[in-house]
Amino acid sequence: MHLRSSPPPRADALAKATGAERYVLDFAPAECLSAGAYRPGAALNIAHGRVLGVDASAALAVPGVLRVLTAADVPGTNLQGIVHKDQPVLCGEVIRHAGDPVALVLAESAESLRRGLAALRADIEPLPGVFDPEAALKKDAPLVHPQHKGGNLLLGARIEKGDARAALKNAPVVVRGEFSTPMQEHAFLETQCGFARLLPDGVLDMTVSTQAPFRDRFEIGHALALNPFKIRIRAPYLGGGFGGKDGATVQCLLALAALNAAGRPVRMSWEREESILAGYKRHAVHLRYTLGAERDGTLLALSCRLTYDTGAYAHLGCEVMELGMEHAAGPYRVPHTHIEGRCVYTNNPIAGAFRGFGVAQVSPAFEGLMDALAAKLCLDPLELRRKNALLPGDENCSGVTLTSSVHLAECLDELAAHPLWTTRQAWRAAAPRFTRRGVGLAAVFNGMGYGRGLADMAIAKLELTEAGEFLVYNSVADMGQGNAAAFALLAAQELNQSLAENPGAVRLLQPDTERCHPSGSSSAGRTTYTFGNALLKACAAMREKLLARAAMALFVDETQALELAPGAVLHPASGRSLPLTALARFLKRDDRVCVGEFLMPVAQDPPDTGRAFQIGFPHLFFSYGAHLARIEVDELTGRVRVCDFLAATDGGRVLDRSCFDQQAQGGAAQGIGYALLEEFKTRGGLIQTADLSTCLIPTALDLPDIQSLAVDGHEPTGPRGLKGVGEVGLNGPAPALASALEDATGERLRDFPLTPERVLAALNKRRPPSRRRA
Amino acid sequence: MHLRSSPPPRADALAKATGAERYVLDFAPAECLSAGAYRPGAALNIAHGRVLGVDASAALAVPGVLRVLTAADVPGTNLQGIVHKDQPVLCGEVIRHAGDPVALVLAESAESLRRGLAALRADIEPLPGVFDPEAALKKDAPLVHPQHKGGNLLLGARIEKGDARAALKNAPVVVRGEFSTPMQEHAFLETQCGFARLLPDGVLDMTVSTQAPFRDRFEIGHALALNPFKIRIRAPYLGGGFGGKDGATVQCLLALAALNAAGRPVRMSWEREESILAGYKRHAVHLRYTLGAERDGTLLALSCRLTYDTGAYAHLGCEVMELGMEHAAGPYRVPHTHIEGRCVYTNNPIAGAFRGFGVAQVSPAFEGLMDALAAKLCLDPLELRRKNALLPGDENCSGVTLTSSVHLAECLDELAAHPLWTTRQAWRAAAPRFTRRGVGLAAVFNGMGYGRGLADMAIAKLELTEAGEFLVYNSVADMGQGNAAAFALLAAQELNQSLAENPGAVRLLQPDTERCHPSGSSSAGRTTYTFGNALLKACAAMREKLLARAAMALFVDETQALELAPGAVLHPASGRSLPLTALARFLKRDDRVCVGEFLMPVAQDPPDTGRAFQIGFPHLFFSYGAHLARIEVDELTGRVRVCDFLAATDGGRVLDRSCFDQQAQGGAAQGIGYALLEEFKTRGGLIQTADLSTCLIPTALDLPDIQSLAVDGHEPTGPRGLKGVGEVGLNGPAPALASALEDATGERLRDFPLTPERVLAALNKRRPPSRRRA
Repeated sequence: MHLRSSPPPRADALAKATGAERYVLDFAPAECLSAGAYRPGAALNIAHGRVLGVDASAALAVPGVLRVLTAADVPGTNLQGIVHKDQPVLCGEVIRHAGDPVALVLAESAESLRRGLAALRADIEPLPGVFDPEAALKKDAPLVHPQHKGGNLLLGARIEKGDARAALKNAPVVVRGEFSTPMQEHAFLETQCGFARLLPDGVLDMTVSTQAPFRDRFEIGHALALNPFKIRIRAPYLGGGFGGKDGATVQCLLALAALNAAGRPVRMSWEREESILAGYKRHAVHLRYTLGAERDGTLLALSCRLTYDTGAYAHLGCEVMELGMEHAAGPYRVPHTHIEGRCVYTNNPIAGAFRGFGVAQVSPAFEGLMDALAAKLCLDPLELRRKNALLPGDENCSGVTLTSSVHLAECLDELAAHPLWTTRQAWRAAAPRFTRRGVGLAAVFNGMGYGRGLADMAIAKLELTEAGEFLVYNSVADMGQGNAAAFALLAAQELNQSLAENPGAVRLLQPDTERCHPSGSSSAGRTTYTFGNALLKACAAMREKLLARAAMALFVDETQALELAPGAVLHPASGRSLPLTALARFLKRDDRVCVGEFLMPVAQDPPDTGRAFQIGFPHLFFSYGAHLARIEVDELTGRVRVCDFLAATDGGRVLDRSCFDQQAQGGAAQGIGYALLEEFKTRGGLIQTADLSTCLIPTALDLPDIQSLAVDGHEPTGPRGLKGVGEVGLNGPAPALASALEDATGERLRDFPLTPERVLAALNKRRPPSRRRA
Repeated sequence: MHLRSSPPPRADALAKATGAERYVLDFAPAECLSAGAYRPGAALNIAHGRVLGVDASAALAVPGVLRVLTAADVPGTNLQGIVHKDQPVLCGEVIRHAGDPVALVLAESAESLRRGLAALRADIEPLPGVFDPEAALKKDAPLVHPQHKGGNLLLGARIEKGDARAALKNAPVVVRGEFSTPMQEHAFLETQCGFARLLPDGVLDMTVSTQAPFRDRFEIGHALALNPFKIRIRAPYLGGGFGGKDGATVQCLLALAALNAAGRPVRMSWEREESILAGYKRHAVHLRYTLGAERDGTLLALSCRLTYDTGAYAHLGCEVMELGMEHAAGPYRVPHTHIEGRCVYTNNPIAGAFRGFGVAQVSPAFEGLMDALAAKLCLDPLELRRKNALLPGDENCSGVTLTSSVHLAECLDELAAHPLWTTRQAWRAAAPRFTRRGVGLAAVFNGMGYGRGLADMAIAKLELTEAGEFLVYNSVADMGQGNAAAFALLAAQELNQSLAENPGAVRLLQPDTERCHPSGSSSAGRTTYTFGNALLKACAAMREKLLARAAMALFVDETQALELAPGAVLHPASGRSLPLTALARFLKRDDRVCVGEFLMPVAQDPPDTGRAFQIGFPHLFFSYGAHLARIEVDELTGRVRVCDFLAATDGGRVLDRSCFDQQAQGGAAQGIGYALLEEFKTRGGLIQTADLSTCLIPTALDLPDIQSLAVDGHEPTGPRGLKGVGEVGLNGPAPALASALEDATGERLRDFPLTPERVLAALNKRRPPSRRRA
C-alpha cells in the first residue's frame, strides 16, 4: 500500500468555507410547522416553583396556533437524562430552574408560534431555592429532587490511593489553595434545533443537531413511550456542539410535537436567549487542594475536595465529576491521593457535558499548586513539572498503570526549548509603560473514551458503491471537529485512493440511525480513535475482499499478486487492471459492504477505589499537553492581553496536521475565553448574562495567533497511532494564564474567570511584580 | 468455543429419506410451457452431417406447438463451452455427433411437445466421420472442427521431469503395457432439467439442475447475447450430478425458449434416452505406459502417452486430460517422467467432466504396471506401493513439492493390517467349485480444486436473521454429496449452536445467483474445502461481531468476557445473557450479515513444464486412498462377484464420519460399475446402449457392503483440517479389481470394463491361476 505523502485538503473545508455545507435546518421542508417551549421561570423571576396551572386560552386564540401541550399530554415517563433520568420533558408540578418548560406550542409559523408563546400564562408559586452547593448540602435545605435519597447530594465519591493523610502529615513541604471555576456557555454558532415528522408507517423521522443520534432514540423512547427502533435520527454536520448537544435538547419536545402534528413536519429552533436559558452549561466547581512534596520537589501526596454544581438536573453531572476526580492530581506521579467529589443539585441552570468534561475545572487547581510549590521551593516551574511528569508505565493518581502512550515529558521539553520560554526574561523586562508582562505555563491531560463499564465501541460501515466509489457511513456526528474529514482521509489512505486527484473517491454519509451502525456519541475525544479503528478494519476487509474478487475476475491465483490502486485493482506482473467501476458491477450489494468494529481497550488492573461510580471509571488512554502563555496586564484597567500562546500536544501520531492544529487552537481559544472573560452570571438561579451582549465569548481580536506544536508520539492501539485531541487543549489556558498573571503581578488569582475587575483588585494590593523566574 | 462431540444427523437426511425434499421440477409452476430439442442424428443414423434444412411445417400444425426455433433464431454467438466455446446451442450447418440439436420446440404441454418433435423433419447430408482418436489424427482424416487450427487434435501437451528416456534406458527393470478405459454415463437419478421465465424487468429467472449456477450465467450470456448479470439462476438440491451437470445442458436451450415464450414460464426436462444421447460422458482413454525401476522396486522413470477422446466438442476435455496427466505416475515418487497427452475431437458423444475427472482413467494403467513390476521382481505388491508411496515434502510426478498433507502410507498400512489382507491366502484357497478367488489392491490419489490459473475461490455469506437464526447462503450446489449438510455442521460448530437440540439454529439457502455470492462450481473435490473455509471465516467474523454487539448492549467492557452459546450470548461472570432473538432485533440488516472468502493456495514452485495448459496446472492438494478388493470369478460364465471391498481414505480430518463414508462408498460403487459392467457402446458414433436396459449401472445387489476406513489426517489449510473426498474413491476400484482378477486368473486385463465376455476369454487361455502372493 502506498501512503500519500501530503494529505489533501480537509474534505469538508470547501463546502464550509463557501457556505455550501448544509446544516440541520437547511434540510427542513418549507412546509414545516413550528414548535416552541414555554419557559415562564425567567419572566416570572422564579427558579424554583410549584406549577399551579397553565392558561392556554389566549394562546389558542392566536391565529395559527394549533396545539398547546402540557405534561399531561406526554405519553411516557416524561423523564429524560443520559444516565440519571430526572428531567421532565414538560414540567407538570414543579420547575427546578428558570429555564424549565411547562408547555409546548405547535403553530403554523414561527410568527404565530412567537405570538402564541407570548399569550401563554402560567400560575407558578415560588418555592425556596438553593443556589450554592454548600448551602444545598446543609440540613433542612430546600430539596431540588425530594425523591432523591441523597437529598441534594446527587453523588458523593472518593478516589484513594496509598495513605494521603499520613503522607501529607510527614511531607517536608505542603501547599494549599482553594479555587473556583465558573459555569460556561457553549455558545455554538448553531443553536439547538431539528425537525421531525411522524411517517405513515409509524416511524418518527427526525433530523437533529445532536452529538448522539443513536442514544437519542432511547432517550426519546423512554420519555415518550415510543419504540426506539421506530425512531430514525439523522445528524448532518453540526454548527458546533462542544458537549452541549450531547443529550436531549430539542429531541423529546420535537418528538412530542411531531406526535401531535397529524403527520405534518415540525421544526424547532431555539433562539439564542432560549439556548442560554435552557441549554446545558459547564459545571461551576469549588476546589479545596492540599499538595505535599519532598524538598527536591518530588510530589508525595494530594488531598482535595471537589464540589460540582450540577444545577437542576443530573445530566452527566456524576460522570463529569468522575473525570475531574480522575484528573485531580494532574499529569504527575503522586504516590498518595485522597480525592473527594460531591456533585450537588441546585436550582441553577443545568450543567452537563462541555469540552474538557470536568477536567478543565481541576487543571487551574493542580497547576496553581504546582506553581505555589515551585515558588516555595525556589524551583523552576517547568523543571518541577518535568521532574514529576507521568511516564509510560507509571501509575496515575487513580492507581491505573499507564500502558498507553505518554509523551508529556516531550511536550514540556518542547516548551523548555522554545524561544517564547528561553527569552522570557528579556521580554518581560521590556514591558511598556503601565503594562506588566508575565509568562506562565501549565501541564495538562485529558482522558479519552468512556472508561470502564460502557463498552466504548464503534461500528464502521464502508460500501463500494455501484458506481465504484467508496462510501463511508460515518456514524459519529461531526460537530465541526473534523472527524468526518479524518475518516475520509483514513479510508483513502487505507484503500490507497487519492483524494487530491479524485475527491469523490471516498465519500461520506453523515450519521443516520437507519443507514449507519451505532457507534456511540461524538464526545470524550473518542470519535477518531474509536470509529477510526473500526473504519480501518472495514477498509482492510474491503481491500482484502476487492483483491480477492479481482483475483477471481482476472484469473489470478494469489491476491498478493494484486494491488489496490486509485480507481482500480492492478496486476503489476501482467499490467492488467480491473477498474473499480467494473468490479463494483460484479458484486452484489451484500458483497460491496464491509463492517468493521472496534471496542476500546480498558485498564486491566482497575484499582479498588471509586466504587461510587456506576460507569466510566477508570480511563486507560490520555492525551497530554503543555501550554505556555505570554501576557500583558494593563495596570490601569486590569485588562489582560494574551500576546503569545503556545500549545504542545501529545495526541499520538498526527494524521492530518492542519486538523490537529485546528483542534489545539480551537481548544486553546475556548480555554482562553473560559479563563479570562466568560463570566456566566446567575443570581438566585436567574441568569444575568442572558444574551450574547452580556454572555461574552472571545472574538478573533481577543485572541493571539495560537501556536500548535505536535509531539508526534504513537499510541499502539490507535488508528495509525493517533489519540483524541479534541479536549486536552481546553484544559491548559486557565492555569497557564493564571500562572502568567502571577508572574506579571505576584498575585495568584484562584477564582475564575480572571476578569479585569479581579485583576485590578489584585494589582491594587500594590505588591511589586514577582521576579521569581530567572 | 465448545465443539459438540457427536455430530447431529445430516441436515438434509430426513427430507430426502421421506421424499419431502424438493428438486428443480418440484418448484416449477404448473402453467409451464414445455420446451424440447430436436436431435435428428440418432434416428437418421448420422453422427456427422450437413444440415440442409429443417421442415417445421408439420410440427407447427400440431395443436399446442407454439414455436419451432432454429440456429437462425439464436441471438448471440450460439456457442457454449466452459473454456473452449465450440458447441452450438442449435446446430445450423453441421451436426458433429448424433445428439446434436437442430431445432427447439416450444409447446403448451409435454404431450404437444412430444407430438411436435415427432412431426419435425430435418434434411441432413451424411459426412464422413471419425470415431477413433488414432484415425482422427491421421492426415486427411475428416475434420470435426475444420476451423480449429490443430485439426482434430484439440490439445497436445507434455509434462516432463528429469530425463525419463535416459533413465528408462538404464533402468534394471522395465515393464510396459497398453490400457484402454471406456466412456461412462453419469446416469444420475434426475436427468437434466430446469425451468425459466423472462420477467417484465428483463431478468431471466431460471431454476436449473446445475453444478455451476454462477458460471452458467456467463455461458448463457455469451451464447445468447444476454447480460449475464440479468440472468438469475437458482440451483436447488440436485438429484445427482457427478460432473455431468457441470457446464451447459438445458441452460442455453431453456433460456432461448424463455426468450421466446412471451413472459410465460417454460420447463425443459430430458427423457432418459435424451440424457444418454446428448449428455456428457466420461472420456474414453487409450494409455501406453512404460515404467522403469531398480531391482529393489524403487521407481526410476515413467514414460507414457495418454489419448483422450473428447468427442464432438471440447467441453472440459483439455482440463480432464491435464488432470489425468498430472496423476499419470500414480501417488509415487518417480524421479523421471515423460507424460504426453493428446485430446482428440471425434464424432463420438461429447465427453466432459465426470467424478474422477481424467484420473479414473489413468489409475488402472499405473496400478497395472505396479502389479506387473511386483510380479516381475517377486515383491509383495502392497510393500512395493508402500516403498514408493509419496510422503510429505516429496516431489510428485509433475515436479510439485508436496507441502500439503499426504497420508497415503497410512492408508496402505491400514490395508496391510486388515484381516481382508492378512487372511487372503486361506480365503483364496477356500474357493468353491468352478470359482476362482482373488485379492487385489490399488493406491490412488486425486487432486483437489481448480489448480493454478483459475483463482479457486469461494465467498460465503452468513446472516443472523431477524428471527435470530443463522442462515448460511450456500453458493456451491449440492448434487447429493452432502456439502450443504457439512456447511450447516461447520457453521453450527463454529457458532457453538446445537443442531441436535435445535435443527433450525442453522438453516441453509441453496444457491441463488441473486442472493448468494459466486463460489465456483460444485466439482473438483473443492466444495467443502473452499466454501467451508470461506464459511468458517464468515462464522468467525459473525461470532466476533455478535460478542462485540452484545458487549455494547450488556455494558460489558471486553468481548473476551462473553461467550456465544446456543441461542444466546452469555456473560458467565454475571450470569446475564442476551438471546440471539433479542440481539438480532438490535442489528441493522447490514450488520447481521458476514461475508467470508477463501482463495485456495497454489503451488509456490510451479514446475516449468505443462506449458500447453491454459489453466488448472499444477495442483497442490491431493486426497489419497488405498483400496482392496476380494472377488470371486465364475469359471463357467466369467462373471465377477465383488465379495469384499475396503477403501482406506486420506481426506484430511473427518468432519462427519457418516458423510465421509458415504462419499467413499459412493465413489467405490460408481468405480465398481465403471470397472466391471458399464460398457457404454457406440458404433460409428451412434450409441448402442441408448437406454437403461442396455446402459447398465450396478444396483445394490451388484455391490458388496463397501467398508470405509478413514485415515484421520490433518490438512492445515483445510476447514477443520479436511480435504475433499468426493472423487478419490472412484479411482481405486478399476485397478483393484483388475489386480484381484489377475490374482484369481493369472491374466491381467487391460481393457475395461472387465465384462464376463472378456474375463471368460481370459479364462479360456486356461492358464492356471497365479499363486504369486504368499
